[in-house]
Amino acid sequence: MKDLKQITVIGLGLLGGSITLTIKRCLPSVKVVGYTHRPATRKKARNLAVAAKIFNKLTDSVSNADLVILATPICTFENIFSKIADSLPIGCIVTDVGSTKVLAHRWARRSLPKTVNYVGSHPIAGSEQRGVEFARDDLFEKATCILTTTNKSDPKSVRTLKKFWSTLGCNVKLMTPVRHDNVFANISHLPHIAAASLINANDNQTLKFAGTGLIDTSRIASSPPNIWTDIFATNAQNCIKAIDKIIAELKKLRKALNVEDKKQIEKILRKAKRKRTALMNYKMKKKELIS
Amino acid sequence: MKDLKQITVIGLGLLGGSITLTIKRCLPSVKVVGYTHRPATRKKARNLAVAAKIFNKLTDSVSNADLVILATPICTFENIFSKIADSLPIGCIVTDVGSTKVLAHRWARRSLPKTVNYVGSHPIAGSEQRGVEFARDDLFEKATCILTTTNKSDPKSVRTLKKFWSTLGCNVKLMTPVRHDNVFANISHLPHIAAASLINANDNQTLKFAGTGLIDTSRIASSPPNIWTDIFATNAQNCIKAIDKIIAELKKLRKALNVEDKKQIEKILRKAKRKRTALMNYKMKKKELIS
Repeated sequence: MKDLKQITVIGLGLLGGSITLTIKRCLPSVKVVGYTHRPATRKKARNLAVAAKIFNKLTDSVSNADLVILATPICTFENIFSKIADSLPIGCIVTDVGSTKVLAHRWARRSLPKTVNYVGSHPIAGSEQRGVEFARDDLFEKATCILTTTNKSDPKSVRTLKKFWSTLGCNVKLMTPVRHDNVFANISHLPHIAAASLINANDNQTLKFAGTGLIDTSRIASSPPNIWTDIFATNAQNCIKAIDKIIAELKKLRKALNVEDKKQIEKILRKAKRKRTALMNYKMKKKELIS
Repeated sequence: MKDLKQITVIGLGLLGGSITLTIKRCLPSVKVVGYTHRPATRKKARNLAVAAKIFNKLTDSVSNADLVILATPICTFENIFSKIADSLPIGCIVTDVGSTKVLAHRWARRSLPKTVNYVGSHPIAGSEQRGVEFARDDLFEKATCILTTTNKSDPKSVRTLKKFWSTLGCNVKLMTPVRHDNVFANISHLPHIAAASLINANDNQTLKFAGTGLIDTSRIASSPPNIWTDIFATNAQNCIKAIDKIIAELKKLRKALNVEDKKQIEKILRKAKRKRTALMNYKMKKKELIS
């Protein structure tokens, strides 16, 4: 970790701002600087003092960085990698906090110089809110952070990045980008797809009678559409497979309802309850949830 | 409300126990008694003092009641109506707190004597927990309570019941049982079906990586399977129509993903976000949610 003297965060929304604030708290000796492309966000970020310095120019922000973290929508990565390529110091670690990883690795391989080391990061933290004004210095506390690595990843950079996210409060796990995108299509992207579909299946008049069940089940349908469009679009085939799986489950229940097979309905519900209980117990045991 | 000297609650789970506790707090001059068929639950209910008296015999519990409230699984209603029919005082109001209402009205029409007045109730309150030990005297605070009435409902009993649920903290709305079951298939039963299907679409190993998105979206999959089997089974055709609607929405997203139509994906997500924001604003305005 003593390799890290300056960290640059590109993109200062909820996630980027929370990274800079958490670095300030957990790594006070590291200089953390930032860049964000909108002048209005730069102004807000300066007023909130989320970083030691907020640059007006992207290339300037990375020229002294030991670690560069992209916290912008996924579909901007390729362009940003190209733009910063010539300004990155030799030996610099580059990562991103995007929610899909296969394309991020492909773009890094194509656009970053061989003199820097790319490793993917996916801290599983955030909320349906957006903007630097919602940034918090405890967002990563007990959050899982997946590092995505391939057989070409630099072991020392992986170790440094693992240490970095641990220091910010994360439980770090390693995965290949291919496995990552498959897993997250199922446990992250599918819930968003289901939440949006649940809301869109209802008209506004009927929705007014909603109780906490629908409200909680659909919470993530309030997430930023542009961010999630990028996530789905960069993981389309895995998302399609996940959609097919939930449709198959919905059809199982539909069939049981249609033939009034109460035993089968209850069997399906019991299975879901048992699996969710096992999940919650696992999360409690791992202290990944506040009990 | 001065008509109500004794209220009998049949079934002392989370909901039944919360009704008795809330009556004790909000209507201290009314005598509230209970019955529940399991001796172990009767013992627990007595230890927790959720009611002035817990009867061992169902018919004894209702013989002096001005209002009888069924808080048992829906599929027990027909049998309970038959059993209590001969013990109900003339002019007694009978209601239930089941989550589907068409069959409850049919069973009441068939099995209750003409000398008593049946009106359906559906307080939209509860949690994924179960058992009298989770009963609370604030469960109905700001909850919506739907009263289901037909052109045969006794207006005075409807007025009394409306006043009763208001006193317990509810916002009372009137609906026919047919409209009720249609609305709730969409905004209550469908979220449960989606939550259970989301969990069952995933294997246990993949689930371990779940973040708060999946955990919140699936919360209601932890609800009691027997209760929800009754709800789905007594509203099967409406649930089937609701399942078809969410499958249609899932297929819209699937299609957009398959042709990589980012504009269409974002349009769908924006629509969901806009509708959910409108819903949340409505709930805030009506003070049905703690902001």
